[in-house]
Amino acid sequence: VVVGGGDDAAVLRPSPGADLVATTDTFVENRHYRSAPGTKLFTPRLIGARLARANLSDLAAMAARPRWALLSLGVRPEHELDDLIELETGLGDALAHDGAVVAGGNLVAVEGAEWLSLTLLGEATPGRAWQRVGARHHDLIAVTGFPGRAGAGARLGTRSDLAPRAEWQPLIDAWVRPDSRVRLALALASLEVVTAAIDISDGFAGDLAHLCEASGVGAEVDATAWPEDPLLMRAAAALGMEADALTFGPSDDYELLLTVAPTGRAACEETARKSGVRLVFVGSVTGHAGTLVHLDRQGHERPLTTTGYDHFR
Amino acid sequence: VVVGGGDDAAVLRPSPGADLVATTDTFVENRHYRSAPGTKLFTPRLIGARLARANLSDLAAMAARPRWALLSLGVRPEHELDDLIELETGLGDALAHDGAVVAGGNLVAVEGAEWLSLTLLGEATPGRAWQRVGARHHDLIAVTGFPGRAGAGARLGTRSDLAPRAEWQPLIDAWVRPDSRVRLALALASLEVVTAAIDISDGFAGDLAHLCEASGVGAEVDATAWPEDPLLMRAAAALGMEADALTFGPSDDYELLLTVAPTGRAACEETARKSGVRLVFVGSVTGHAGTLVHLDRQGHERPLTTTGYDHFR
Repeated sequence: VVVGGGDDAAVLRPSPGADLVATTDTFVENRHYRSAPGTKLFTPRLIGARLARANLSDLAAMAARPRWALLSLGVRPEHELDDLIELETGLGDALAHDGAVVAGGNLVAVEGAEWLSLTLLGEATPGRAWQRVGARHHDLIAVTGFPGRAGAGARLGTRSDLAPRAEWQPLIDAWVRPDSRVRLALALASLEVVTAAIDISDGFAGDLAHLCEASGVGAEVDATAWPEDPLLMRAAAALGMEADALTFGPSDDYELLLTVAPTGRAACEETARKSGVRLVFVGSVTGHAGTLVHLDRQGHERPLTTTGYDHFR
Repeated sequence: VVVGGGDDAAVLRPSPGADLVATTDTFVENRHYRSAPGTKLFTPRLIGARLARANLSDLAAMAARPRWALLSLGVRPEHELDDLIELETGLGDALAHDGAVVAGGNLVAVEGAEWLSLTLLGEATPGRAWQRVGARHHDLIAVTGFPGRAGAGARLGTRSDLAPRAEWQPLIDAWVRPDSRVRLALALASLEVVTAAIDISDGFAGDLAHLCEASGVGAEVDATAWPEDPLLMRAAAALGMEADALTFGPSDDYELLLTVAPTGRAACEETARKSGVRLVFVGSVTGHAGTLVHLDRQGHERPLTTTGYDHFR
């Protein structure tokens, strides 16, 4: 940062020969952060950190090094200054964890719902940023973390008819305090075996469809390769949902979905193990453009949809 | 733009050896764009163009070349799609006029007031971006355009007790359709005589104070050097205000305030003339840090304040 806040604009000096990677994401009060009445899951610090993680996830999905952020806040005039400082602290700490800083921004007064909008800039080696396009027939499909947990946590944390249970805490945490995948992404990128990537903030099936559409390929996901998540299954039962609807459907997971050249699997697994991040190979890329297939545990092929699959069809 | 919208983030390729200049600005419905009841001064296209101009003004004040923008929109679900397209067209056209494009963004639903937030990235030669710091004793002070006109237009355009008059149109236009000063700024920067710069979106006196504070200097503004603006004086009378309060006070003018090495005056005037932009030299920088003086037409020294000066003091 050559010139930071307090001038008309911030002046930033990119690394020589670096491409710039830019993303923007916005949280709206009562929509992107809310809790069941009587509970207080989101502190200002956690809201700030989560907005940072949402943007960091977009850069992770491009294998970009986070560098600079600009924050816009729309707050009601009566907003406590201490809470704003807490929010900026949570956001700043989450950015600093991955090497980025807030370089500027602005504040406007609003009367209704508050909102916070972050623009995050990163750097990538020219021509080496991961994209959604690039997946090839026979590539393997891998995913980080425990997809579906954040969506389960969001449902458990906002439904006032469900009593809180200590065992749900990992699901609540997946929603409220998502981890960063930036370091893993940068480590994996250096292996040069990832052919395409996307973050699954819209849900595994939906974002796999986006990646396949951009790459002009299809995908086959194998249930037997996907370790069961007993906690998620218990949450699905408590919520009256299919576990597959949580795993594959719309969620708030900031996890990475990658396609990997077949020869690169072992190296990716070793890198993920060293990073302490779960990385599971769950299927492969096919030549049937636009066709997403789910092989269930009984070996039956069904269309993979964002609602899992419908038993009554 | 190497990778545009539709991926997790945009990938941008800066010019080799360029510094990046980044700004963000937000408009909130009924606050940054509104008209008197029964009038319709702001079309969606004009709102989009004005948000672009607000951000472009920050880059002009840094002498940066505009390149890429990211747009975040918070809109009510019932917002007409055609109006959104008009807004993006107005914004895109205003950016294109100065060489910039929208490279990404996002859209969220809101229930209360709508808002639009733009982050604009530009490039500058390393170490050559204008800043607020840099003004030196004996430098000259210059300002573009007709400061105060936008503020007069905003008051005339929002007060329902004042009948519209055709003669106010240039004032309304100064508010609704501000010009870009980017081309002039780039032309002036190439002369290498501007020592500090700021845009006067907070008003002439307030932003002159910001520049003086950053530079550790004072300023003397000479009323006899400042051409009278008869239209602004008539508007002040109609509004029941002092003309000086409009000229020096809080306004919505996206004009440039520059300090210039004394030897650079003629070259700046010639460049402005060629650009078709009014540039007036209105005073000089003094060594009295923090002291802003107004020499009135009778040669009396008074403190320069954001309310002009108070006759009854």
